[in-house]
Amino acid sequence: MDSFHTAVIGAGSGGITVAVGLAGLGKKVALIERSHVGGDCTNVGCVPSKTLIHLANHAKDLTPTEILAKVRERRDHLRDEETEWLAKTKNISLIRADAKFLDKDTLELSRSSSKEKLTAKHIVIATGSSPKPLSLPGLAESITLTNESLFDLEALPKHLVIIGAGIIGIEMAFAFRKLGAEVSLIGRASRVLSALEPQASAVIQKRLEALGVKLYLSSQPERFENSTLILKEEKARLEQVEKVLVAVGRSPNLSLDLEKAGLAYSEQGISTNTFGKTNVPNIYAIGDVNLNSAFTHSANAQGRRLVQKIAFPFLPVGKEPIYPSATFSDPEVAQVGPTLEALKKRYKSDLIKTFQYDLKATDRGYTSFLEDGFVLIHAMALTGRVLSATIVAPSAGEMIPLLTHAVNGGASLYKLANLVFPYPTLSEAIKKAASNYVFETLPNLVKDARTYALQRWQNPRH
Amino acid sequence: MDSFHTAVIGAGSGGITVAVGLAGLGKKVALIERSHVGGDCTNVGCVPSKTLIHLANHAKDLTPTEILAKVRERRDHLRDEETEWLAKTKNISLIRADAKFLDKDTLELSRSSSKEKLTAKHIVIATGSSPKPLSLPGLAESITLTNESLFDLEALPKHLVIIGAGIIGIEMAFAFRKLGAEVSLIGRASRVLSALEPQASAVIQKRLEALGVKLYLSSQPERFENSTLILKEEKARLEQVEKVLVAVGRSPNLSLDLEKAGLAYSEQGISTNTFGKTNVPNIYAIGDVNLNSAFTHSANAQGRRLVQKIAFPFLPVGKEPIYPSATFSDPEVAQVGPTLEALKKRYKSDLIKTFQYDLKATDRGYTSFLEDGFVLIHAMALTGRVLSATIVAPSAGEMIPLLTHAVNGGASLYKLANLVFPYPTLSEAIKKAASNYVFETLPNLVKDARTYALQRWQNPRH
Repeated sequence: MDSFHTAVIGAGSGGITVAVGLAGLGKKVALIERSHVGGDCTNVGCVPSKTLIHLANHAKDLTPTEILAKVRERRDHLRDEETEWLAKTKNISLIRADAKFLDKDTLELSRSSSKEKLTAKHIVIATGSSPKPLSLPGLAESITLTNESLFDLEALPKHLVIIGAGIIGIEMAFAFRKLGAEVSLIGRASRVLSALEPQASAVIQKRLEALGVKLYLSSQPERFENSTLILKEEKARLEQVEKVLVAVGRSPNLSLDLEKAGLAYSEQGISTNTFGKTNVPNIYAIGDVNLNSAFTHSANAQGRRLVQKIAFPFLPVGKEPIYPSATFSDPEVAQVGPTLEALKKRYKSDLIKTFQYDLKATDRGYTSFLEDGFVLIHAMALTGRVLSATIVAPSAGEMIPLLTHAVNGGASLYKLANLVFPYPTLSEAIKKAASNYVFETLPNLVKDARTYALQRWQNPRH
Repeated sequence: MDSFHTAVIGAGSGGITVAVGLAGLGKKVALIERSHVGGDCTNVGCVPSKTLIHLANHAKDLTPTEILAKVRERRDHLRDEETEWLAKTKNISLIRADAKFLDKDTLELSRSSSKEKLTAKHIVIATGSSPKPLSLPGLAESITLTNESLFDLEALPKHLVIIGAGIIGIEMAFAFRKLGAEVSLIGRASRVLSALEPQASAVIQKRLEALGVKLYLSSQPERFENSTLILKEEKARLEQVEKVLVAVGRSPNLSLDLEKAGLAYSEQGISTNTFGKTNVPNIYAIGDVNLNSAFTHSANAQGRRLVQKIAFPFLPVGKEPIYPSATFSDPEVAQVGPTLEALKKRYKSDLIKTFQYDLKATDRGYTSFLEDGFVLIHAMALTGRVLSATIVAPSAGEMIPLLTHAVNGGASLYKLANLVFPYPTLSEAIKKAASNYVFETLPNLVKDARTYALQRWQNPRH
């Protein structure tokens, strides 16, 4: 029976980070993957979806079929590169197998024909998540897609119905509509991207509608009949549907006989502390499989923190950062920290100062003929601490890092108001919002100080 | 004779900032402008040039003539808005006149028909700069353009020669070539954008050449004969030239009888301390007219600092920040802090650690099919202090603010290595460069500490 310093289950963003990090420090690592190296991100997530979005925007000389083929070709190329690189990495044994726990130190590895065992001092669960299934009466499997099968499409569907108006649903609605498909988008909530700020939803809905995507909000599908999808309460009948993309959420991959290791978990995932530690001291869970965050970059960040914790257990690693999110719609939506609604549960309303600055009011917005988009910042009264921020802009993903740094304690609004931005850029809206905060705060100093002192006294943690 | 708290000469970026700032604090301000409100930026600089660049990239359905007309229309609209807004601003007297000093407190204002005087407690010179003229034998004025006349062009020249390969020359080479003109670019230095890092020049030259711009580097024009421009040493003959854009640098606007106020200055500008103070205690100079920096955003920043200094003379305003620059080429080039060449004059070479990360090595670069572009960071050994940075990327101007914050002391490379960037973005290259710094520094800790201590001992200022 082979024995390792660390066994990592799942070769996605989190798992690869841990395996490569520890291997680089000289530890003997088993990296176990039941399917493709790269995880969802490389194979059925960010990489093919961002390639598709890029080509849908820019490759005007390619047909949709050529674009879909190109997406697969690029995806496969990256996967092959990653696989080859991992196989060559010193101290990593890349094992193609399905892993299950036998006890807290032992895994059983199943391949098509054989089973074997493996022990490790540390075991890291980085198995990710899978699309939640949707059972819809009458809907045939042959026309049902999830992110796992979407990028295997060889031809553009004439009419694509997307169920779910979260990040995946929205990104694919833009991409497939731009490729020329008729797209109908069904969302259960009253707005798209309902986990984000309502101002962001409003811009995205306006843009989707301008592109000709048909939106059905506050709606749920009821049944499927002869290529017609019927919504509950007969709200609408979507006809001549060719494919249905189900994007109604993710479920963690937990079929690992976790009980045999004594692990505590729920259907939502494995609960961990801020550096991936589970209730069993030598077992960690990072990425989509834990309850903390479900992004490629948060899995990567959790992996990096875990490498530090395993390799240098006595060094402090600080508290888990507040992760940004990005939606690669048109324009992009980037966000970091809680929404206003969530902040109001934590702080007195008087203490939360909100500043929104529209991009069209910046000079770069003017020279770029922008109509939509904004920078929205929620900050603490008096101290200028940035609590959260949302950017809706063509390159919002490239603008959010400064505010991610701010939200994680790196810069107050007083600092951002004094930072010099190159002229003319859309990022100036950050400075404008920060300056407006400063202008409003200075005359209200006494009132704000009183409210702030009161909250500190009532709730010293914040 | 009218008397003011502050007289501001020049209603460009710097002057407007000071006038509006002080007026908002209740001070009586005279804002004197001899030409158009908005200065070079609004009228003959950033605003029309960025509008032109935007339309050259995106307005595929407009003819060049329509695009040039649209640029003027948008420019005029913004100028009218700014003029109207300033005229309505309380406490500001907008005076259309040419100002000259009579003594340190008194200005003479000349209009076409009349002259009058004005006194002020504080006088702010914000007169900006003008394009340096070029005298080229045989070149007729009728075909010579500068940034001041360029945007009055009503039709696209068939063959445009641009003399000068700095920011203006480069931006206009991209824009006019994309509009369809034949463009020849003549640069005196051996590379374009010679004030920036050579790696940036290399990318921009490659892209200019790929677009079909003809580059003549290490070259100077000698004379013009029958629509042919002949380079010195007969390096080349550029034929059938229709227009010549001269962009060989800027000269400060100093025709103000500065001697009568006792002001010290040179042809390069008025020397000031870090908040615009000249050798005469009540007179300030900000923006292009001083020696510190020549960008719209630095003029604006100097204006903000000056408002604080005049209105609250006893509050500290800190030292002048390090300003970023941006070139709106394709891709954009954004930079903050000194080049490596300049850093080497200040620090021992051992102490400067350079990390470059190419965008094509990031996942977003891969999904966007990027071939060029990078993040380049120079940092201090051991401490991780960011000394300077250059970004060449499609939205480099939106990515540089985080590094501007870092260069101004807001974040070390240790911080940037731990910052979580949304996946997949090009900004991840910042994290990668920072992480590479950390990986290299940790094993060299002892060596770096020795070098650093030595420099501190020899030169405690840095």
